[in-house]
Amino acid sequence: MLLDQIKKPNDIKRIEPRDYDRLAEEIRQFLIQSISETGGHLGSNLGVVELTMALHLAFDLPEDKLIWDVGHQSYTHKLLTGRKEGFGNLRKYGGMSGFPKRCESDCDCFDTGHSSTSISAGLGFVKARDLKGEDNFVVSVIGDGALTGGMAYEALNNAARMDTNFIIILNDNNMSISENVGGMSKYLNNVRTADNYLNMKEGIYKSLLKTKHGQVVVDSIRRAKSSVKQLVIPGMFFEDMGITYLGPVDGHDVKGLIKVLKEARRCKTAVLVHVLTQKGKGYEPAEKHQARFHGAEPFNIENGVPKKLKAKSNYTDVFPTVMIKLAKRNPEVVAITAAMPEGTGLKRFRNVYPERFFDVGIAEQHAVTFAAGLAAAGMKPIVAVYSSFLQRAYDQILHDVCIQNLPVIFAIDRAGLVGSDGETHQGIFDLSYLSSIPNMHIMAPKNKWELSDMMKFAVNFNRPIAVRYPRGEAYDGLELFRAPIRYGKGEIIYEEQEIALLAVGSMVKVASEVHQKLKEKGYSCTLVNARFVKPIDEELIRELSVDHKLLVTMEENVESGGYGEKVRKFVDEADLRTHLINVALADEYVEHGNVDVLKQETGIDADSVTARILAAYAGL
Amino acid sequence: MLLDQIKKPNDIKRIEPRDYDRLAEEIRQFLIQSISETGGHLGSNLGVVELTMALHLAFDLPEDKLIWDVGHQSYTHKLLTGRKEGFGNLRKYGGMSGFPKRCESDCDCFDTGHSSTSISAGLGFVKARDLKGEDNFVVSVIGDGALTGGMAYEALNNAARMDTNFIIILNDNNMSISENVGGMSKYLNNVRTADNYLNMKEGIYKSLLKTKHGQVVVDSIRRAKSSVKQLVIPGMFFEDMGITYLGPVDGHDVKGLIKVLKEARRCKTAVLVHVLTQKGKGYEPAEKHQARFHGAEPFNIENGVPKKLKAKSNYTDVFPTVMIKLAKRNPEVVAITAAMPEGTGLKRFRNVYPERFFDVGIAEQHAVTFAAGLAAAGMKPIVAVYSSFLQRAYDQILHDVCIQNLPVIFAIDRAGLVGSDGETHQGIFDLSYLSSIPNMHIMAPKNKWELSDMMKFAVNFNRPIAVRYPRGEAYDGLELFRAPIRYGKGEIIYEEQEIALLAVGSMVKVASEVHQKLKEKGYSCTLVNARFVKPIDEELIRELSVDHKLLVTMEENVESGGYGEKVRKFVDEADLRTHLINVALADEYVEHGNVDVLKQETGIDADSVTARILAAYAGL
Repeated sequence: MLLDQIKKPNDIKRIEPRDYDRLAEEIRQFLIQSISETGGHLGSNLGVVELTMALHLAFDLPEDKLIWDVGHQSYTHKLLTGRKEGFGNLRKYGGMSGFPKRCESDCDCFDTGHSSTSISAGLGFVKARDLKGEDNFVVSVIGDGALTGGMAYEALNNAARMDTNFIIILNDNNMSISENVGGMSKYLNNVRTADNYLNMKEGIYKSLLKTKHGQVVVDSIRRAKSSVKQLVIPGMFFEDMGITYLGPVDGHDVKGLIKVLKEARRCKTAVLVHVLTQKGKGYEPAEKHQARFHGAEPFNIENGVPKKLKAKSNYTDVFPTVMIKLAKRNPEVVAITAAMPEGTGLKRFRNVYPERFFDVGIAEQHAVTFAAGLAAAGMKPIVAVYSSFLQRAYDQILHDVCIQNLPVIFAIDRAGLVGSDGETHQGIFDLSYLSSIPNMHIMAPKNKWELSDMMKFAVNFNRPIAVRYPRGEAYDGLELFRAPIRYGKGEIIYEEQEIALLAVGSMVKVASEVHQKLKEKGYSCTLVNARFVKPIDEELIRELSVDHKLLVTMEENVESGGYGEKVRKFVDEADLRTHLINVALADEYVEHGNVDVLKQETGIDADSVTARILAAYAGL
Repeated sequence: MLLDQIKKPNDIKRIEPRDYDRLAEEIRQFLIQSISETGGHLGSNLGVVELTMALHLAFDLPEDKLIWDVGHQSYTHKLLTGRKEGFGNLRKYGGMSGFPKRCESDCDCFDTGHSSTSISAGLGFVKARDLKGEDNFVVSVIGDGALTGGMAYEALNNAARMDTNFIIILNDNNMSISENVGGMSKYLNNVRTADNYLNMKEGIYKSLLKTKHGQVVVDSIRRAKSSVKQLVIPGMFFEDMGITYLGPVDGHDVKGLIKVLKEARRCKTAVLVHVLTQKGKGYEPAEKHQARFHGAEPFNIENGVPKKLKAKSNYTDVFPTVMIKLAKRNPEVVAITAAMPEGTGLKRFRNVYPERFFDVGIAEQHAVTFAAGLAAAGMKPIVAVYSSFLQRAYDQILHDVCIQNLPVIFAIDRAGLVGSDGETHQGIFDLSYLSSIPNMHIMAPKNKWELSDMMKFAVNFNRPIAVRYPRGEAYDGLELFRAPIRYGKGEIIYEEQEIALLAVGSMVKVASEVHQKLKEKGYSCTLVNARFVKPIDEELIRELSVDHKLLVTMEENVESGGYGEKVRKFVDEADLRTHLINVALADEYVEHGNVDVLKQETGIDADSVTARILAAYAGL
């Protein structure tokens, strides 16, 4: 195996050029085999095998800096920098991350996870290099999907007209996680296929040929150098901004890539190398089902079918059903996603109401202000988005939606611990950053039926409101508890005395387990589904304080600024005679791992919470 | 006066075309006169007098929707929609806002304040119109400076290739608040002057003329239609994205503008009308000193000199002095601003260290991740930014800076109540949104000397840290209290018993007044400068709780997620035997007005706080 010869950075340089294709094939087979067992990002990684090889051959790591946008496509990079052994525990708790991590290797110079950051970070490395008088290369690899994110454009705007080298690799696979949208995508597609440009050129020639001496003119242009030719070559968009454009080049031809990278090294400006790759390349199921193999569960290699069939539906399955019902009843309802039609479940909504569905690309800021515009014009927009990506639109929520008190509904998926994607993807801040925004309202459902009830409530609410729900299996317990949603009111599930559990959304399931454990130990325990995080149910808390010695808030969110602190403020200021424990996440990032393991590690699982309650209660 | 004939929307349509120039002149004189008395945004408003007239002449408000990006340039729009009387109380508490407000007029369809939102909001109105089967026009006016903001590009990307009308007016005055930066700006400048394009065209002709039959070729091209011509006209950048481009047109020629707007109305796509305007047009001091007249204090019309000369220096004056000193001692120190070299005071830094100064344009997201890249490469970047604009980079702080624990320093100006710009510009959320981010640290100086000490501390701290300070006069009291900054430690100013005031930054001044008032009434009172908002000084709070019956936290920030809630959590969980009051802003937006008035209205002035303390203390 050639791959066995690669144990550390730059070992690839000892591979003979004639063996590049064989190595690429070995890497590909290793990735397919490995990810079929552990799960992980497959399609994007199969797409950049040759590109990564070429980058490692054309540059010297760690002196040269290589920054992967998003970073889920860095598996081959990990292989080529001596991390083959890590793949056995890929994305497991304590195991290797699925993203670049400075703590794993000095060849990972910048941690990533969210989209569209690599050019900005790369510019930081470029300016630092120049100020320090060093001469290393800086290479930022960005996908065409990530180019729909505004901050990539902010960075390109700043990279323009520099008089120093900075290499931007546009990894163009003509896809975000789902299909790309927007003007830039179609522009790149034109360049990619070249048809349009060729057509344009032919159109020009054709129209010239109709003029007097047309043939002479066309021949002259064909022979002409520089400026004229440039007018009919691709990449003018970037050249117009002041960024040198090279390409497009075949992203699966290692030698061709090395050639163009060497050309890029010689530029005295920012240079964009347009590389055409195929997502899923070399594995038929991944080529065919690109969205499914973006982030895959363990699968059978023969047919690409997931090994473990989903037993229960998750919130992402429930959500589109609700949306379709709501849209049927409310002609004002429209749905917006930022490049996540599959991830949010809205694909099914799109099939039924294509004209009321908007995929704006990886552009959360635009998504939210676009929704504000729709709402100001009388519609009821529902923005379906992952919790950690909504962070991108914090200002737009505060500034464009909430100051005007517009009826925008945020359906926040992946809220709470999300697991194997790690720090960058945990949705553990939304209760905090949304709570401090005036006019915002926040709900969280305890189970799948309540998601439906809450969405219905939200559509009729006519003010800014968020409904947040977790990744994975939709809880189907407590199905008999379905009291109507009332504004700002919690739901009492079991009413007893002594200890009262006030749980938010996903934590109701945990709280019902805690409740069971406490009952078994002989404690009297009330279980409340908080339902509303903002506003909190002050009346209910006041009532509970009368005959409960201990209140316990439970939330899958950081403690600072969360639900528990709001309850604490009320308990204190109303001078209620009860004790309070806030179960929440500590003030630290949570790494990757299985969600159940992470809950234990962070102390929000039923056993940890029960132990904490028993200890506190004993001390009262 | 023609202006007197305009009392409501569309009255301008009764003005004879021959009188347009006279009306423009009257509007200009009115604005200069009025703003010289009240203060306000002058330069941008003088630049769009004719453009606004043309828009009101070419469209029917309020049926047609007109959205002003940022919105500070909407004064002529306010005049033409019957709000002339409002100018007497412009930006005063209870008076007319300096920005579009839906509550003021049905001709203001969307509130704005931050940059680069108008195309997104406009698209919302467009899609709502089409879904409802209505046929009004939607017009978004955006400045060239706002085009450096990524979300404008996200929106353009979505406006591309639509088959419905949407009119985007690019108000190109070749300026942000300061000079523009980046590739797009230079591109527009080329289009604006047309020289470059003309040169390119001439270059092509020249090179063709050298070929055989060159003259014939050139003549043919000159005669050729469509595609060939398009290759040498401006606007290809937008056309490439799939947006129809019209222009550039003279923004001070009402009739010419009307003509091109009529053309724009006929498009079945998104159309960008490139309008060239001059900031400050018609008032020489504003033409010459564009940054100063962006937002002006009352001034003498004769010479443009402010009526009231600044008596004391403000933090924005102090900051660059500190920066220059720090940069001298620390070669790693670099400074970043997002289009605010004047506003943040960094202009002076730029003059001394041009190569270590980066103005990235209106691009806060890029600014922060760029800083993260610089920090990862060994530099010590200081991002100087207004509190409310930093909201744009919440995700980048959380995701790119703090996960990696990078030594990026945030110098947050305009933190707290900022006054006359109103809701969109108040810096009253930063303590909350920064506090809930792991690895972040937050300081606030009590006076101008402490800003200097804290910046020095921050540069040596080597982890993410923010220093937040208010707009306006830098407090120069308590100058004798200058104990060294120690990590996480507050500073005791006066140590007594009974009541302890723990004040954050700007509130130390207020607290010292409260202290004085309480002393006068015979109370024993301790005054603490909190210094650190994160982490809080638990040791000190524990000590204070021993001999103080009442602790009072004071902060110029919303209560939710702020300093007070952190202190409350500690006091509660440590079971300290003391009472606590949190003085902070309520959970609502704060409108425009004088800062002192706003402090009274929101109950954080010395009198209100004293009264609240006395009432609470009496009840203990």
